[in-house]
Amino acid sequence: MLPSASLLESFQASQISVMLVIYLLAITAEAMSGALAAGRRNMDIFGVTVIAFVTALGGGTIRDMVLGHYPLGWTQHPEYVYLVIAAGLLTTVVARFMIHLKQVFLLLDALGLIAFSLIGCSVALELGYPKVVVVMAGMITGISGGILRDVLCNQVPVVFRRELYASVSLAVCLLFLALRAWEVNHNLNTAVCFVGGLALRLAAIRFRWSLPVFSYQQRWE
Amino acid sequence: MLPSASLLESFQASQISVMLVIYLLAITAEAMSGALAAGRRNMDIFGVTVIAFVTALGGGTIRDMVLGHYPLGWTQHPEYVYLVIAAGLLTTVVARFMIHLKQVFLLLDALGLIAFSLIGCSVALELGYPKVVVVMAGMITGISGGILRDVLCNQVPVVFRRELYASVSLAVCLLFLALRAWEVNHNLNTAVCFVGGLALRLAAIRFRWSLPVFSYQQRWE
Amino acid sequence: MLPSASLLESFQASQISVMLVIYLLAITAEAMSGALAAGRRNMDIFGVTVIAFVTALGGGTIRDMVLGHYPLGWTQHPEYVYLVIAAGLLTTVVARFMIHLKQVFLLLDALGLIAFSLIGCSVALELGYPKVVVVMAGMITGISGGILRDVLCNQVPVVFRRELYASVSLAVCLLFLALRAWEVNHNLNTAVCFVGGLALRLAAIRFRWSLPVFSYQQRWE
Repeated sequence: MLPSASLLESFQASQISVMLVIYLLAITAEAMSGALAAGRRNMDIFGVTVIAFVTALGGGTIRDMVLGHYPLGWTQHPEYVYLVIAAGLLTTVVARFMIHLKQVFLLLDALGLIAFSLIGCSVALELGYPKVVVVMAGMITGISGGILRDVLCNQVPVVFRRELYASVSLAVCLLFLALRAWEVNHNLNTAVCFVGGLALRLAAIRFRWSLPVFSYQQRWE
Repeated sequence: MLPSASLLESFQASQISVMLVIYLLAITAEAMSGALAAGRRNMDIFGVTVIAFVTALGGGTIRDMVLGHYPLGWTQHPEYVYLVIAAGLLTTVVARFMIHLKQVFLLLDALGLIAFSLIGCSVALELGYPKVVVVMAGMITGISGGILRDVLCNQVPVVFRRELYASVSLAVCLLFLALRAWEVNHNLNTAVCFVGGLALRLAAIRFRWSLPVFSYQQRWE
Repeated sequence: MLPSASLLESFQASQISVMLVIYLLAITAEAMSGALAAGRRNMDIFGVTVIAFVTALGGGTIRDMVLGHYPLGWTQHPEYVYLVIAAGLLTTVVARFMIHLKQVFLLLDALGLIAFSLIGCSVALELGYPKVVVVMAGMITGISGGILRDVLCNQVPVVFRRELYASVSLAVCLLFLALRAWEVNHNLNTAVCFVGGLALRLAAIRFRWSLPVFSYQQRWE
């Protein structure tokens, strides 16, 4: 085995670890955001746990159910389930201090959005789905946990009205597929997607970029 | 090959084309109705796109997920995805003029309801499900896109309160199964279902037929 | 065949019958509770039927879709579908008298919660899922019909805010797995779960036990 191959392999292994760490941070952050949403509805700690779970792992669940990708990811990784439940319950204790970590959360949430999107694309690619489905799988993984959270909390999903969020997922998925089509090395591709997606998301927050809103109040009857 | 066989085949082929055209018109009309619902909630154009997609293709998606019918239809037909996204976005531009086309929309919506119901029945029949599941598959295909649209727009689904709509889907599914049991030719069966379903739906709109409402206000605690 | 084996078999057969009777009573009671919820939203009888169906059979449906357990239970048992539809429609007639049966309903609902939980655990066990997924499958079967009912009726699911309900499902699932790990006979295990779960649930209603509520009103922006 050539040194370079061995180096590449160890780099790839380390990249998988980096991706896993980002993923774990992301589902933790999503679980905590779910718990806060549950707290805004005065739910009991069971409701908090469910909303935390659904927010963190619901996106991947819907993606796998849409793609027919069984068994679902978290059913094979009980440790993810324990992690998001623990994060949800912990949130009820530390909630009052979390506002001071707002910046950290926005960063973790952005990293999570990008990680979820790339993971979703990869799953659909492996299953041989067409490109438009690959992009949708990425976006479903990225945003539908938050949609489920909002439906269960009885509100219109914020992702349908918020500043650039789903668009970041879309941009990341398209960039990933484009670089892949140009045969860019997978690790470089992933790194570029993270840098580009993060820059776009943080700029969107900083400069309050948003999509045009469609407002329609005509009644037909 | 006998002329009659050849004629029949060409009629069947043309009937498939007619069904496909009706289906494409239907998902376009459903996507536009979804976009208008999103506009009533002041969603951004991403929200509009999602609601358009879910309204048009959500019924078939839920049916396939319930029946275990993978891969889902739209994942194999990217052109349907592009069509409903385009229809949703177009709606944001032409919305102000659409009220003048109200009659056209009601007609397309009725055609779509019938087409969706027949397609749903056919899928369940092919998979060998019992009759009651065939009828439910037809109805799920016909109405659950609209249910998802209303849940995501945070309102009680109109199909649970509106004039005869789901009932038309039920009637079409039952008629289709009855004619099939009597060994009526498939094309004739389909044609009769469209004529009968359309007559019922348009009469229901015209004469404001509706189902009895169940109103229950007692509180138990 | 030894007499004792034969006795055991006949006991097991009778236990299956008991479980089936409890299951049928449970889906009937759940369908009726769904119909009442639909009546509170002034739905028409179609809406009542859908909500009754979803409340009674939605939990098992979601469990099977999450576990990839096809075909779904009710698609192979049309009689369950007829039963819950009949129960839903009957409710619109007898609703005014049902408040006098409140105690009976609470009892049937508690029995149903336990039966659903045990059935959910069994399905996941048979499919070889890890323990945490087995517990979640039990809870999903027990409570997600009610969650779907509340989402379709446009309200925050009561199970996220009510007195000990989901917790009873959790306790039953954990007890069932614990007794199973200690190799307790299956019938005895089931019986103990019913007695323990029923006692916990009725005590929770009687003494208004509830989980701590997490209330969080800070706004981040």
